[in-house]
Amino acid sequence: MDDIIFGKNSVLEALISGEREINKILIAKNIHSDGKLNKIKELAQANGIVFQFVAKEKFQPYAEYNHQGIVAQISPIKYYDLDEFLETPHRNSSVVILDGVEDSHNLGAIIRTCVCAGVEAVIIPSRRNVQVNSIVEKTSAGAVNHIKIIKVNSPVNAVQKLKNSDWWIIAADASAVDNYFDVNYNDMNFAIVMGAEHAGVSKSIMKLADFTVKIPMMNNFNSLNVSTAFSAIIFETVRQRICNNKKVK
Amino acid sequence: MDDIIFGKNSVLEALISGEREINKILIAKNIHSDGKLNKIKELAQANGIVFQFVAKEKFQPYAEYNHQGIVAQISPIKYYDLDEFLETPHRNSSVVILDGVEDSHNLGAIIRTCVCAGVEAVIIPSRRNVQVNSIVEKTSAGAVNHIKIIKVNSPVNAVQKLKNSDWWIIAADASAVDNYFDVNYNDMNFAIVMGAEHAGVSKSIMKLADFTVKIPMMNNFNSLNVSTAFSAIIFETVRQRICNNKKVK
Repeated sequence: MDDIIFGKNSVLEALISGEREINKILIAKNIHSDGKLNKIKELAQANGIVFQFVAKEKFQPYAEYNHQGIVAQISPIKYYDLDEFLETPHRNSSVVILDGVEDSHNLGAIIRTCVCAGVEAVIIPSRRNVQVNSIVEKTSAGAVNHIKIIKVNSPVNAVQKLKNSDWWIIAADASAVDNYFDVNYNDMNFAIVMGAEHAGVSKSIMKLADFTVKIPMMNNFNSLNVSTAFSAIIFETVRQRICNNKKVK
Repeated sequence: MDDIIFGKNSVLEALISGEREINKILIAKNIHSDGKLNKIKELAQANGIVFQFVAKEKFQPYAEYNHQGIVAQISPIKYYDLDEFLETPHRNSSVVILDGVEDSHNLGAIIRTCVCAGVEAVIIPSRRNVQVNSIVEKTSAGAVNHIKIIKVNSPVNAVQKLKNSDWWIIAADASAVDNYFDVNYNDMNFAIVMGAEHAGVSKSIMKLADFTVKIPMMNNFNSLNVSTAFSAIIFETVRQRICNNKKVK
């Protein structure tokens, strides 16, 4: 069963990655031609993928999405298996575990941030978590094609497996004592656990965590959005890695 | 002319701030009662604000918004004046200047992050930038009521005025040489300039900037969303301030 993806970035990144089977690309006749669109046509032609120019009325079923006059019928993304992932050796690697993130825009934004920050995989539970849908693909600006997405039945078991393979578990929690920048993220494989928008990280994962960290709040105001909170934490790990490499040199 | 705001957080934060004149609150009869809703009713009663329980059909005009069964008619947010802001003394303060951010969700997310990170004001141009609308209020989780929002005719003039008052200007730009964590943000008033989603910071502001900084990309992938990029930068300034205060003690 094919998925539908929307927008220039989503379609272009799917073509570039070469990981997805694209059945057909539909382009609105009135669409404004630009560098991205030309690149899409070029890659489609080179790979023998059909693209059709159609009247904009054909996009009526997708009106609720910001489709930019381009959609593609595409094979679903390929999910990876945690056991296989852990069988291969890793060094100074990072993954993120999403424990009940329910909003498609947040999942898309987190995946996009992960690719920019060099995170190797995103682990999502197959229940009580949003899955990779069209909105996630669009919000991620096509980043879903550039990272391993691992689906697990139980995030608690996933955490236990990572621990057994010597990965460190760092849970983000608003009531933690340590700030996220108090942890040294260098010279280890680590997993950042981000919780549900309202409930936070589940108690059973909190018990297994090696560190719990908070983002310090400078005002008496509820809390950050999960995707912006994740960005602050993950780029601190990038900062530490770059600064550490400079010191070693 | 009244604005309409949606959702529990938006309405609750508007009540808590006491800065807005609320004409009327409409609550859907079938709404699930919880701590936030009780707090809303309590604050409304204490301040003599009318709230009405209405059939959910009354929410039909707001179907496209995630209203959670509650809307309020409210006076528009009060915009601040840059000249007045600069007349009062500031010490180790920060503001953000948005140079053409077009997406309501991004503006809301940035305002929310600003309040969490203790940023004093958000400066937005009155043209070529999204304004504070219902979606911005909702995405900000009501944070619009807890920060000064300054509207300016020309962001270039605003930058010049800030410079004349000894504020440092830091522009975020993907092609900068320095990383955002190479700058020392302590012991100064500074303004972070974030550019439009596609075009970035305008050339005339780039020329006036004291520093231009980038977020290092760990993959060959286009770039971060403006609100997640801003979060990484602004929480680095928070980290530096907290670590510096510890050293001084």
